[in-house]
Amino acid sequence: MPELRKDIITGRWVIISTDRAHRPTDFLRQSVEIRGVGVCPFCPGGEGKTPPEVLAYGRNGGAPNTAGWSVRVVPNKFPALGIEGTLDRQGEGIFDKMNGIGAHEVIVETPNHQGSLATMDEHGVEEVLWAYRDRILDLKRDRRFRYILIFKNHGEAAGATIEHTHSQLIALPIVPKRVREEVDNSKKYYGEKERCIFCDILRQERESGLRVIAENEDCISFSPYAPRFPFETWLLPKRHGSAFEDAQQGLYKSCAAMLRDVLRRMDAVLERPAYNYVIHTSPVGEEANEHYHWHIEMMPRLTKVAGFEWGTDFYLNPTPPEEAARFLREAAVPVS
Amino acid sequence: MPELRKDIITGRWVIISTDRAHRPTDFLRQSVEIRGVGVCPFCPGGEGKTPPEVLAYGRNGGAPNTAGWSVRVVPNKFPALGIEGTLDRQGEGIFDKMNGIGAHEVIVETPNHQGSLATMDEHGVEEVLWAYRDRILDLKRDRRFRYILIFKNHGEAAGATIEHTHSQLIALPIVPKRVREEVDNSKKYYGEKERCIFCDILRQERESGLRVIAENEDCISFSPYAPRFPFETWLLPKRHGSAFEDAQQGLYKSCAAMLRDVLRRMDAVLERPAYNYVIHTSPVGEEANEHYHWHIEMMPRLTKVAGFEWGTDFYLNPTPPEEAARFLREAAVPVS
Repeated sequence: MPELRKDIITGRWVIISTDRAHRPTDFLRQSVEIRGVGVCPFCPGGEGKTPPEVLAYGRNGGAPNTAGWSVRVVPNKFPALGIEGTLDRQGEGIFDKMNGIGAHEVIVETPNHQGSLATMDEHGVEEVLWAYRDRILDLKRDRRFRYILIFKNHGEAAGATIEHTHSQLIALPIVPKRVREEVDNSKKYYGEKERCIFCDILRQERESGLRVIAENEDCISFSPYAPRFPFETWLLPKRHGSAFEDAQQGLYKSCAAMLRDVLRRMDAVLERPAYNYVIHTSPVGEEANEHYHWHIEMMPRLTKVAGFEWGTDFYLNPTPPEEAARFLREAAVPVS
Repeated sequence: MPELRKDIITGRWVIISTDRAHRPTDFLRQSVEIRGVGVCPFCPGGEGKTPPEVLAYGRNGGAPNTAGWSVRVVPNKFPALGIEGTLDRQGEGIFDKMNGIGAHEVIVETPNHQGSLATMDEHGVEEVLWAYRDRILDLKRDRRFRYILIFKNHGEAAGATIEHTHSQLIALPIVPKRVREEVDNSKKYYGEKERCIFCDILRQERESGLRVIAENEDCISFSPYAPRFPFETWLLPKRHGSAFEDAQQGLYKSCAAMLRDVLRRMDAVLERPAYNYVIHTSPVGEEANEHYHWHIEMMPRLTKVAGFEWGTDFYLNPTPPEEAARFLREAAVPVS
């Protein structure tokens, strides 16, 4: 069973995994499993190679764990956390830990081995967002969890170990430090000004237009004012909403269109980069609030992060966000 | 002139560089400059290829910017921040920025192109620490600076772009977020307990011995309790000291021996990994205090950092620190 341990100085929790590769020599052999269609565990026909599914869309009447699905969610075969057991919080001298209880799932976004969120049609991307929502709603009923984290690693440089396009979900008994900070700071700002800090940012970004990439009825994408990484991009609903899973129905359609659009722009401008994205949403039990505004943070992997950035949380970004936004805004994206 | 911009939500400052590569296509061609001895700007005879030196040891009577030195410090030819000008703090609507004033220097650790901190003799490593100290003391006289950051990128995977072994120094008009957090949290702990949190950690680590790697008269190295990365290692003076540059003379000798010893252990166990280290010390103007304890954080680059880690400051570490410490403790390090 993995452990969650707290860094006593910064307050950051870390998963210390014990089931995964950990001997020194294991690190020397890390590489991506490139698998053809025939042996890919995420392709139709490979359903037996994954743990039994927890959700599938599109299989009209077919049996579980058979082909015919359009989106499929399965437990991660090598989970970072274990789903079984009671939370056991303990001290270890001056340190704090708990057993590594959590869920770790994989959202297979399409049956098409060659597909990606940028090349799928809008309806396909919308289905992925609905799958995120359905899994969040289900896992939130588990009282052990404080946060449901949705993220995607696309490409080897971004940490993907299976090439068939997929996202991941991790349900956690703690709130990740960065999210906790964002929520707390947003709450403080709201306390002072009676306004959502993200709504204020949106207002200013739309007025100046300098960093806006694209906008549709309900969503906007822009380069943030102080991005850590070149071409870092945020995607937000234009109207205030504190929890991704509580969004109104039409919003997923708009967001899917915007997400796909931004990824197509990145593919065009940056020659199909590896990227990560993470959904930032309110913690479990704090879903309905006026201060936090859910959003997606997208980070193409273009630069190597250097020593001082790791060690200080202080970043050097070689691309002004105004230029990144201009390149992405003016990208020639094929209409489809 | 680069800019420093503040992320309004997390409070993190970011350097937005405008002089470095930033067009999308620039990222597609990034690679390390592998240069032979003859054309290396850090080799003896290449002194004219760098900006004029600001410090050199070992050149007995020779002219500046000629061969004969043992450690040489020069301004970075492509600095992340500019040294000239007055600090100009401005608002931009709801955002905060200042012009990118700062120093960016390179510490060339040895004239030997094939050398490294692990293969140099102890005296050579000690000289590097003295050079760090001398540069910190000099730059602290500049009233614009709040923090002097010393770090090292070793190997391409760790972000080094020139292979001749070197460290870097960045003097900043702000305190990096992670350091600010550490200092503030240490101060809070001291306020509650009247004890340094690092001294408490040291006491517990030495008692249990579980995570200790090595110890000499004045220094200790260990795997921290909740490390973000496999084989992450901290090096601390055993007696309380809040500022690296104010250490007693003998301490640099002990620290150099320990730093070299740990790097040799890493080389043995992890087959000469790429790594980063960062010196964490008290901010300028807060040097003498009872709550903060300077230290070096060392991170070999073994795993790819994935999306959820970037986006949440929540890490998954596949190697328990007790195992990492055991491997490093038991490493067969050649005596020299």
